[in-house]
Amino acid sequence: MKNLKIFCDTFLGNAALKQLREGVAPHELIFPAEMVNSPLAKSDPDPAFAEADIAFGQPDVANILQSTRLKWAHISSAGFTRYDTPEFRAFAAKHDIQLTNSSTVYAEACAEHVFAFMLAQARHLPESLGVRHKNATPEWLNLRHTSPLLQHQRVVILGFGGIAIRLLEILRPFHMNVVAYRRKVRGDEGIPIITAAELPDALAEADHVINILPANADSQNFISTERLNQMKRGAIFYNIGRGTTVDQEALAVALRSGQLGAAWLDVTEPEPLPEGHPLLSLPNCYITPHVAGGHQGEAENLIGHFLKNFRRYLDEAPLVDRIM
Amino acid sequence: MKNLKIFCDTFLGNAALKQLREGVAPHELIFPAEMVNSPLAKSDPDPAFAEADIAFGQPDVANILQSTRLKWAHISSAGFTRYDTPEFRAFAAKHDIQLTNSSTVYAEACAEHVFAFMLAQARHLPESLGVRHKNATPEWLNLRHTSPLLQHQRVVILGFGGIAIRLLEILRPFHMNVVAYRRKVRGDEGIPIITAAELPDALAEADHVINILPANADSQNFISTERLNQMKRGAIFYNIGRGTTVDQEALAVALRSGQLGAAWLDVTEPEPLPEGHPLLSLPNCYITPHVAGGHQGEAENLIGHFLKNFRRYLDEAPLVDRIM
Repeated sequence: MKNLKIFCDTFLGNAALKQLREGVAPHELIFPAEMVNSPLAKSDPDPAFAEADIAFGQPDVANILQSTRLKWAHISSAGFTRYDTPEFRAFAAKHDIQLTNSSTVYAEACAEHVFAFMLAQARHLPESLGVRHKNATPEWLNLRHTSPLLQHQRVVILGFGGIAIRLLEILRPFHMNVVAYRRKVRGDEGIPIITAAELPDALAEADHVINILPANADSQNFISTERLNQMKRGAIFYNIGRGTTVDQEALAVALRSGQLGAAWLDVTEPEPLPEGHPLLSLPNCYITPHVAGGHQGEAENLIGHFLKNFRRYLDEAPLVDRIM
Repeated sequence: MKNLKIFCDTFLGNAALKQLREGVAPHELIFPAEMVNSPLAKSDPDPAFAEADIAFGQPDVANILQSTRLKWAHISSAGFTRYDTPEFRAFAAKHDIQLTNSSTVYAEACAEHVFAFMLAQARHLPESLGVRHKNATPEWLNLRHTSPLLQHQRVVILGFGGIAIRLLEILRPFHMNVVAYRRKVRGDEGIPIITAAELPDALAEADHVINILPANADSQNFISTERLNQMKRGAIFYNIGRGTTVDQEALAVALRSGQLGAAWLDVTEPEPLPEGHPLLSLPNCYITPHVAGGHQGEAENLIGHFLKNFRRYLDEAPLVDRIM
C-alpha cells in the first residue's frame, strides 16, 4: 500500500503524539496550523487537509466536503452532530468515505458516571454527606427510610449504543426492569426496545429515565414539556447525551413542581450554563461539566482505539465504531 | 407448641407493628415500659422480659443473663457488639439460647451505599458537581483525566459477611481484583481470603480498602497508624462497619498528609462526631450519618425477616443469620 497521510488536528499530549506517530509509521502524520486541545472541540478549516488520506480528530466538515483524497475520518469524540446531516451523508456515500467515532473509548467512563449519578441519588448522598443527624432523631429516620433500593426499579434508557450496552452489564446485579428507546431496532439488544408510540406508557412507569440520545434534528428538545409530563411523578432524570436534546425551560418547570424528583446532568446547552441560569439554582438539579467520558488514560485509549482501527483499515477489515 | 411470648422492644411504626402482631398470632407480643425508636438504639432493662420465650429488637444483655425462659433473641441490627463477649457467649451456649441478627435486611442497602461512595469518588462527584469549567480549559482537562476507571483496580475488603457477599456481586461487572480479610476462613468465599500476616502486602497494592469489620475486642482501632502506613499512597478508605475499628486521629493524619487519597465513612466514634472534630473539616473526608443500611421499606423488611425466622423456629428448622 502506498504511503498514507493522516491528518491529525487534536493534541492529546506529547506521549500520546509519540504513540500515534510510532503507531502509524511508516505512514505519515500531517498537522493543521492550529491543533485543538480537546476531543470535544471543533477544528477550523486548514489547507493541509487537502493532502490527507485519513483524518483523525475533529476534522472540519467543509474541508472534508472539498477533499478529493479522503477515504476515512475517525472522530475523536462519541458525538458526531456536525457530520450527521443529509448533505454530509450523501457526500460520504458518493465518495466512499468511511466515518468512525470513538464511542468505545468513552463507554466505560460514561456508564460509570451515570451509575454514580443513580447511586448518589438513591443513597441521598447530596443530603446526607456532612450532616450530623443523631441516631433515632426524626430527621435521621427520614433520611434512612427514604432511600429506595435499586432492586426491581424501572428504567427507561433513551438511545441505545455502546454506553447503554455497558450500563446494562453494570445494572444486571440489581435485577432492574430496563427498556430502551432507539430509532432502529436491531433485535440483538437483549432488553425490550420500545417505539415512540410505546414511550408514554414506559415513561409513566419509570423510576429512572436515562437520556443518552445524540444531538441531531430528530432529538432536538426530545425531552419536552409533554414528555416530562408523561413521566411518573418524582422520577429521576439523567442526561449524559447532549444538552440540546432537552428543553431546559421545561426541565426547570418540572424540577420546581416536583414532577421530576431530581435531574442529574453531565451535558447542558450551552456548556457551561451562563451565570444565573434557572437550572443552576434548583436544589434538585445536579450538574457536572461534561466530564462523563473522561478518565485516566483517556488520551492513550483514544490513540489506541484509532490505531486498532488503522490496522483494520490497512488490512481492509471492517472498521469498528463505524457510523457511515 | 405452647403459646409463646415474644418480647419486642423496638417500635418501627404502626403498620410494622400490625404486620408483626398478625405474623406471630396466635402467639403473643409483649412490650417493655419504654420502646426504642430505632433498630440501632440500646434498650434498657425491663421486668416484662422475664416472661419472654423469644426477644426481638435490642434486648438488654442483663435481662437476657437473668432470664430462665428465653430460647432465642433476634437482634434488629446487623451489629451485635454488646452480645459479643465471652460471658454472653458462654451463657447462651449453656442455656441453649440462639442469637440471630438482621444482617440480611441491611446487606443490599449497605452494599449499594459503599458502592455509591466508590463511584462518587472515582467520578470525582464532590469536585465536579456544580463547577462550571469550560470545555478544554486546564481545570476541565484535569477533572476529566484524573478519574480512574474501576476496571481492574485492586480492592481489599476487611470483614466478610452478607454485605461483602453482595458487594462482590455488584463489583463483578468491573473485573476488579478483590481479596478479603476475615477471622475464620470457610473456603466458600469465592475470592482469595487473606490472613493478618498477608494483610500488609495486600494493603500496599489496594486502590480501595473497604472496612466492614464489626466492633469487638479484636477490631478496636484495627485501622491504626501502622496499617494506614501499609496502604498504597493515595488509596481510598471506606468504613461502613463500626467507628471504633478506626483510630480516627491516625486517620486524620493520613488524610492530611495525602497518605490516604480520601476517606468515605458512614460510621464514626462517637456518632455524630462532636463539632470541631478534625475529621469534619478535612476536605478529603466524606461522612454520612450511619445511614448505609437504611432504605425504603426497612421496617417491613425487618419484621418480614424476623417472621421468616419465627416460622423456621416453630418448624425447628435452622435459623438464618445465626450468630450464636
